[in-house]
Amino acid sequence: MANRGDKRESILDAAVRVFARSGFHHSRVSEIAREAGVADGTIYLYFRHKEDILIAIFEEKMAGVIVKLREELELVSGAEARLACFIEYHLTQMSRNRELAEVLQVELRLSNKFMKEYVPIRLTEYLDIIAEIVQEGQKLGQFRPELNPAIMKRAIFGALDELSMHWVLTRGRRPDLKVSAAQLSDLFLRGLRQTEAPCIAVEDLTSRHDGSVPTLTGGQT
Amino acid sequence: MANRGDKRESILDAAVRVFARSGFHHSRVSEIAREAGVADGTIYLYFRHKEDILIAIFEEKMAGVIVKLREELELVSGAEARLACFIEYHLTQMSRNRELAEVLQVELRLSNKFMKEYVPIRLTEYLDIIAEIVQEGQKLGQFRPELNPAIMKRAIFGALDELSMHWVLTRGRRPDLKVSAAQLSDLFLRGLRQTEAPCIAVEDLTSRHDGSVPTLTGGQT
Repeated sequence: MANRGDKRESILDAAVRVFARSGFHHSRVSEIAREAGVADGTIYLYFRHKEDILIAIFEEKMAGVIVKLREELELVSGAEARLACFIEYHLTQMSRNRELAEVLQVELRLSNKFMKEYVPIRLTEYLDIIAEIVQEGQKLGQFRPELNPAIMKRAIFGALDELSMHWVLTRGRRPDLKVSAAQLSDLFLRGLRQTEAPCIAVEDLTSRHDGSVPTLTGGQT
Repeated sequence: MANRGDKRESILDAAVRVFARSGFHHSRVSEIAREAGVADGTIYLYFRHKEDILIAIFEEKMAGVIVKLREELELVSGAEARLACFIEYHLTQMSRNRELAEVLQVELRLSNKFMKEYVPIRLTEYLDIIAEIVQEGQKLGQFRPELNPAIMKRAIFGALDELSMHWVLTRGRRPDLKVSAAQLSDLFLRGLRQTEAPCIAVEDLTSRHDGSVPTLTGGQT
């Protein structure tokens, strides 16, 4: 017999499939029970109502996403590479689990309780990872100190969220999220950087003795 | 007697107040009628149901926002100034009409119909204004040609939308949206720019004859 944790988990996984298929508002607890292969009453041992299940999906799936994200970030060093890693991780998560993406991007936002009453601790935690990376870059003099990490974390998350939402809602051929990730990294890293790569050429001048004038691209093509 | 257009408009304005106060899901058509000073039945001459009113608020208020935005953009020249104008306009709109902001940011997103069935033409139009500005900057060689305007428009809108959402949902002291606008303009303009302002110092070199080495800030403090 499955233990309590396993059964709860399998109810949540079943609910993700049902919500993605029928939409949160049109789903019934009995449909989730059938999908999970449990009796209707069993669901109520774990959750008070349908909205509780939706919010539990958010909390638990986000907790997993955050653990894996932190592992991925451990593998790269430097604020620039870490921000690029965050951006790619966020967008590839979408395509890895299409049904979960649908539930987190669309169904969850349709919940009055989630939007208004609930304090999404996991979302705050997720956003704060971006702020930490920005602060790390600022501490090391790589990112501009005048940019406020609390605003930057929302700007970056907002951009990722809008592109994710567009991806989920697109019927037919979806945009390539690898391209979106590369474009966003390019945009935000350039926006955050203390000095632009080509500008290093100005500094290089001090060690030039041939009197030549460096180009704007600093020799990069 | 008010003409048809006026009465429709006053129903929409009343609905904005009612939705902001009671929330879309908890509002009743009779409450909107009372607020607008019309009979319940009058509402149904203009709208089929409550969700129709919500979507009409979006369409008509956004149409007004777009007309005024285009007027503001006419007053400034150059892609950089126009993008900064767009960013400031979006965020200051929020604080100018608190109730409308609440309805457009929160209540509208709670609508199943709006999120799933409805094609928000006005939103597409609004996003395309950002894309036009990016393309204008690219055509003039100010913005980097490798950045995709279709991705940039969503990145910039997403950032604005997330900061707006945060502002609307914040209870107590709200963040200063003028500061947010300045920070976002700084981030995105730097991210989009073909070359960084400090790099102009490199070009200046060609006309320098005193042999001095320009600083990275190009003399700006």
